[in-house]
Amino acid sequence: MNARIKWLRNQLSSLKLDGIIVSNPVNIRYLTGLNVEDSIFIIAPKENTLITDGRYIEYVNRSLTISDEIVACNIKNLSKYDFECMFVMGENIGIEEKFITYETYKTYLQTYQVDLSETEGIIENQRIVKDEEEIECIKKACEITDKAFKYISQNIRKGMTEKQIAFEIEKFMLENGADGRAFDTIVASGRNSAMPHATPTDRKIVHGDIIQLDMGCKYNGYASDMSRVVFVGEIDEEYKKAYDFVLAQQRTMANTLKDGANIKQAVKDRETEYKLKGYEVMHSFGHGVGLLVHEAPALRSQVDCILKENSVITIEPGVYVPNSFGIRIEDTYHVTKNGCVALTNSTKNYLEIRN
Amino acid sequence: MNARIKWLRNQLSSLKLDGIIVSNPVNIRYLTGLNVEDSIFIIAPKENTLITDGRYIEYVNRSLTISDEIVACNIKNLSKYDFECMFVMGENIGIEEKFITYETYKTYLQTYQVDLSETEGIIENQRIVKDEEEIECIKKACEITDKAFKYISQNIRKGMTEKQIAFEIEKFMLENGADGRAFDTIVASGRNSAMPHATPTDRKIVHGDIIQLDMGCKYNGYASDMSRVVFVGEIDEEYKKAYDFVLAQQRTMANTLKDGANIKQAVKDRETEYKLKGYEVMHSFGHGVGLLVHEAPALRSQVDCILKENSVITIEPGVYVPNSFGIRIEDTYHVTKNGCVALTNSTKNYLEIRN
Repeated sequence: MNARIKWLRNQLSSLKLDGIIVSNPVNIRYLTGLNVEDSIFIIAPKENTLITDGRYIEYVNRSLTISDEIVACNIKNLSKYDFECMFVMGENIGIEEKFITYETYKTYLQTYQVDLSETEGIIENQRIVKDEEEIECIKKACEITDKAFKYISQNIRKGMTEKQIAFEIEKFMLENGADGRAFDTIVASGRNSAMPHATPTDRKIVHGDIIQLDMGCKYNGYASDMSRVVFVGEIDEEYKKAYDFVLAQQRTMANTLKDGANIKQAVKDRETEYKLKGYEVMHSFGHGVGLLVHEAPALRSQVDCILKENSVITIEPGVYVPNSFGIRIEDTYHVTKNGCVALTNSTKNYLEIRN
Repeated sequence: MNARIKWLRNQLSSLKLDGIIVSNPVNIRYLTGLNVEDSIFIIAPKENTLITDGRYIEYVNRSLTISDEIVACNIKNLSKYDFECMFVMGENIGIEEKFITYETYKTYLQTYQVDLSETEGIIENQRIVKDEEEIECIKKACEITDKAFKYISQNIRKGMTEKQIAFEIEKFMLENGADGRAFDTIVASGRNSAMPHATPTDRKIVHGDIIQLDMGCKYNGYASDMSRVVFVGEIDEEYKKAYDFVLAQQRTMANTLKDGANIKQAVKDRETEYKLKGYEVMHSFGHGVGLLVHEAPALRSQVDCILKENSVITIEPGVYVPNSFGIRIEDTYHVTKNGCVALTNSTKNYLEIRN
């Protein structure tokens, strides 16, 4: 049995839970290494069981070894009674209430005939602190992202459309070792940059544009996430003011956020700065990165959250002037005892495109 | 107000529902045309409201016009009382129980202070029958997929890895007009083909291999889905037997499935054929295709389901011999009054790679 499952089993017993039904495929992958959908991983007092279907059973059987201590079943070979016996030595079973649908919750009640308890994102919280191998994968994804940014910043030409630029970025990442993109690449030019989550359009790049890029890829399943803006021609003074403000916010935050820091306080401080400057806070200041590009912890000021060593997070302050422009700078960071170490390292100097 | 929202409003009143809370972003896109995440579209007696956040509010405000009859709100400007007033003229409100999590269900109960009713996939069912524009998008996605298959079948060489082939397919689709892939491309060679949902590996193609390809892309948000096998060198007789069987199953099904046909019966007939030949049924025989690559209806024998004109489905029978090989043939079809019209049209002759 691997260390992740062992850790979780220990946690469950200290929470007085007799087991857990893991349904989120990202959590199943994290715990078992298996890439399966529509499957269920059951941790019960007597054993660990993976219930999958005909699409995956052969892959699962080939992947697991005796030392995994996971029993694999094809769901079509299980009877109603088999399910009722899953938790024969347990009564209070955890569920992923943030993942399973209301319909699934009701089905589980019927199927397993046990009491179901919420687990408050126990595995999502377990995933926050990364091991060495996970950090290496994220580093690789970040390196590919840096290369892609360098490539695109040298190849953007006036007259290209946002869609073309997004396509070139994604193609470059794929051709340079990425499994795929981590999310739909954002290229938002001119006043489109005022929309934090713009979708690339057929708008052509013209002189005087701001271009907001938000890009990331996956390596061995792990994500990267980075945002930069580039300028076409001379940079308007208003843009520079906003750019410098955003960059200063990011730097301050990267110095503050380290092992033991309270995210809530760090974010509140930034929110105060925004107010003083008359800018509006339009989205969170960042998020965890791992098997998902957005995962725990969120960089928000609503709840206390103590940051832990070896978490991987983004810091992404942004300023948006409605109907005019927006500027966001984002990097992926490794949280250490002393502060945040950037894993994406693309230049943050003013970048003027002259082509 | 567009036809889709009008239709849904009518359905709701005949179901004695005073409104619905739409949370699934695919359903929100279908109803409003808006690409937003973590947002809520509320259909209430007095108005339609889209609740989103700072990331999307400017995009939403720019996209909507007066004739959409949709009020857009930034969630941060809404008070607890505003939420309680959403359904001021209604008490029994529908939810998407197949989409919202158990946690969200409990939050909705608190937030809206109304009775929540399950809606049994009402919008997913609405999405089954496509309009002309939707079918055109799927056709385009299918054309790109056909082109990509032609390209790859002419460019597979012995010594290439599964990963390389998958990458070439995805790159070709992106370069030929696709928004992106519709799902992770499957390339499974040799005995890997025995796993219906194999992930491409570093295994190199060798003489005598079967190569299973399962590929699709998106065009304007709409998906395509196609599977083919190609053979490297002469084709083993056992492979031919399985191939011919699978192809015959697909043809029979494409002739049977038309407006008014019962999917359950068509699938049961195929299951009987499988039993007679001693093959095992490892996965469903197909699924709907639209904004999602897998959507309603599922081609299964569990429940009665009458097929409707202008649905778009795949038919994908497969035969898998554990630890040895697998063969699946899949096409995307437009369901008409007279039968299924294939939208993917790549050759289904034996394809022998000689390079």
